[in-house]
Amino acid sequence: MENERFNRGWEKLKEIDGKAGENVIESLRDIAPDFAKLLIEFPFGDIYSRSGLDLKSRELAVVAALTALGNARPQLIVHIHGALNVGCSKQEIIEVIMQMTVYAGFPAALNGIFAAKEVFGQTE
Amino acid sequence: MENERFNRGWEKLKEIDGKAGENVIESLRDIAPDFAKLLIEFPFGDIYSRSGLDLKSRELAVVAALTALGNARPQLIVHIHGALNVGCSKQEIIEVIMQMTVYAGFPAALNGIFAAKEVFGQTE
Amino acid sequence: MENERFNRGWEKLKEIDGKAGENVIESLRDIAPDFAKLLIEFPFGDIYSRSGLDLKSRELAVVAALTALGNARPQLIVHIHGALNVGCSKQEIIEVIMQMTVYAGFPAALNGIFAAKEVFGQTE
Amino acid sequence: MENERFNRGWEKLKEIDGKAGENVIESLRDIAPDFAKLLIEFPFGDIYSRSGLDLKSRELAVVAALTALGNARPQLIVHIHGALNVGCSKQEIIEVIMQMTVYAGFPAALNGIFAAKEVFGQTE
Amino acid sequence: MENERFNRGWEKLKEIDGKAGENVIESLRDIAPDFAKLLIEFPFGDIYSRSGLDLKSRELAVVAALTALGNARPQLIVHIHGALNVGCSKQEIIEVIMQMTVYAGFPAALNGIFAAKEVFGQTE
Amino acid sequence: MENERFNRGWEKLKEIDGKAGENVIESLRDIAPDFAKLLIEFPFGDIYSRSGLDLKSRELAVVAALTALGNARPQLIVHIHGALNVGCSKQEIIEVIMQMTVYAGFPAALNGIFAAKEVFGQTE
Repeated sequence: MENERFNRGWEKLKEIDGKAGENVIESLRDIAPDFAKLLIEFPFGDIYSRSGLDLKSRELAVVAALTALGNARPQLIVHIHGALNVGCSKQEIIEVIMQMTVYAGFPAALNGIFAAKEVFGQTE
Repeated sequence: MENERFNRGWEKLKEIDGKAGENVIESLRDIAPDFAKLLIEFPFGDIYSRSGLDLKSRELAVVAALTALGNARPQLIVHIHGALNVGCSKQEIIEVIMQMTVYAGFPAALNGIFAAKEVFGQTE
Repeated sequence: MENERFNRGWEKLKEIDGKAGENVIESLRDIAPDFAKLLIEFPFGDIYSRSGLDLKSRELAVVAALTALGNARPQLIVHIHGALNVGCSKQEIIEVIMQMTVYAGFPAALNGIFAAKEVFGQTE
Repeated sequence: MENERFNRGWEKLKEIDGKAGENVIESLRDIAPDFAKLLIEFPFGDIYSRSGLDLKSRELAVVAALTALGNARPQLIVHIHGALNVGCSKQEIIEVIMQMTVYAGFPAALNGIFAAKEVFGQTE
Repeated sequence: MENERFNRGWEKLKEIDGKAGENVIESLRDIAPDFAKLLIEFPFGDIYSRSGLDLKSRELAVVAALTALGNARPQLIVHIHGALNVGCSKQEIIEVIMQMTVYAGFPAALNGIFAAKEVFGQTE
Repeated sequence: MENERFNRGWEKLKEIDGKAGENVIESLRDIAPDFAKLLIEFPFGDIYSRSGLDLKSRELAVVAALTALGNARPQLIVHIHGALNVGCSKQEIIEVIMQMTVYAGFPAALNGIFAAKEVFGQTE
């Protein structure tokens, strides 16, 4: 049954994060292989696979939270890609980042916008 | 035109935050009346009034961000009410808080769940 | 096998957090039963059950991190109890909190010391 | 010379934080007497006693930082008192907290305003 | 009247942030032009333009807060320049960053000092 | 007696942080020599020199806290080196970082793992 959880997580990770997600897992294999396994199993196998909230809303919420926290730029980049992958529009992503001016201030939102600019530039 | 912005913000604040929002504004009138005015004009008149992202997604993103930041419980309470006010289901709110285990850890998510428990208890 | 993970987590949670941990799980059962299950399975079944670092060092590290973050007082209280439960001395707990003056400033450390004072007062 | 540092810190702590500062020191004496000593020596003996920036600017900066961090309300209360003690006006304190809307968001600033409201209510 | 607010903000932004501020606005024009407009109108048109606290104190407070938050280095750089632009001395800037050792720890302050070193190196 | 404190701190800094610590001090000498002195005296002379908790536990706690805060990568790098210098194994360091998934989320822990990967790559 653990296998099922891992497999479900692996499929979900590829659906959301695509190649960038696979690269993160790959880069963990030598230093912390158990971390790679847990990263697939818990966030993607246990959480993202849940029903009750659509993937688009989950990804917008994650972009919002990572923008507000402001201390995890690589993951924000991955999840702006992820938001696009699951069907969010560029406008929706920009709006949710702009919303963070109110809750985390302008510097956090500004750095979020610049992260989006980097991602959008790669996907055009 | 400033008046228009204030009025638009005031209507939006009442739509989202209801009585709780009005109480916050009221409690600011003696100590910082300009802050009350700016709180209506910028977050509600300028940001929440924007098109490009529906109010439900905005509120779920705000609940996510305030859960992740973990340092503004009164505002988290207000916005869990707000999410219900604009049509989010209790399940969607719980899901977006649970999603934060991955991005901000279990204590932040747990405190978010307890905030939701308090709000849901008042609205049943 | 999921069952094994849950059971291992449940035993570990009781070992570390004791009655306080059971109370948290209990308080989640009506509002978010899946969260209760995940809280047992991932933190306690997957992480705390790992070898490679003794429980005392894990708990001191958790007290340090929660003191530094400064936004999760209820969980800090639970883990100061937890640190005592797994064999840390009061002096070791005070020292690890004082160490945080350097990494998160005096207010965070001071609030950690007051949390310890509350816990130690209950356990004498 | 250590004595000199302690004495200089003690005088400075009383000048800035007044009775509230003395109470903090007193409350540490049983649980962490060395922390009390270090709190007098480093923040007050080493830092606040420096020349190169006047006390008013130091206290306004501390009120700004504690408002922005948003996770140390008791210390924010102490330093709003402190800002008044060293000659800041209520208006200056409100302005510096409002400034934080831009850098840490409206919830952080709002909680700062409410802390100021509590302090000003006690000092009128 | 909106125009007046925008113009007031634009003048204030140039006064405080100079060319660096204009560059930020320019870099937003393609990805999020509304964000550029709001950044001029709210922080600079509404907040920095207020009376009740001099610009030097505002900038020192912003340097303090961004140092303490520690997650917005580009904006800290801009505001160390800004503090110099409105008349703060290098010594005052160093002092306000050192003050943050007490409230946010040594790593945050150290990174603030290195940001100042970078800015001062460009302005000599 | 101040001299004694400085000397004790200097020896402790070299023991824990080695050459990297000396480089930090050196890089402060022109911009903020007093900060360099205080950095030796307080964190290393006053805190790390205390008895009551062994250096290995102190360093693991610091790695945990800096991983959780997620906004001080250069210092996290220094203290992963420091943990190795005082006798922690690579496995213990990886475990304490993985523990932070629970308390600060996966992005913070992931960035901690990548910091460890960088350090371990330099020390093999």
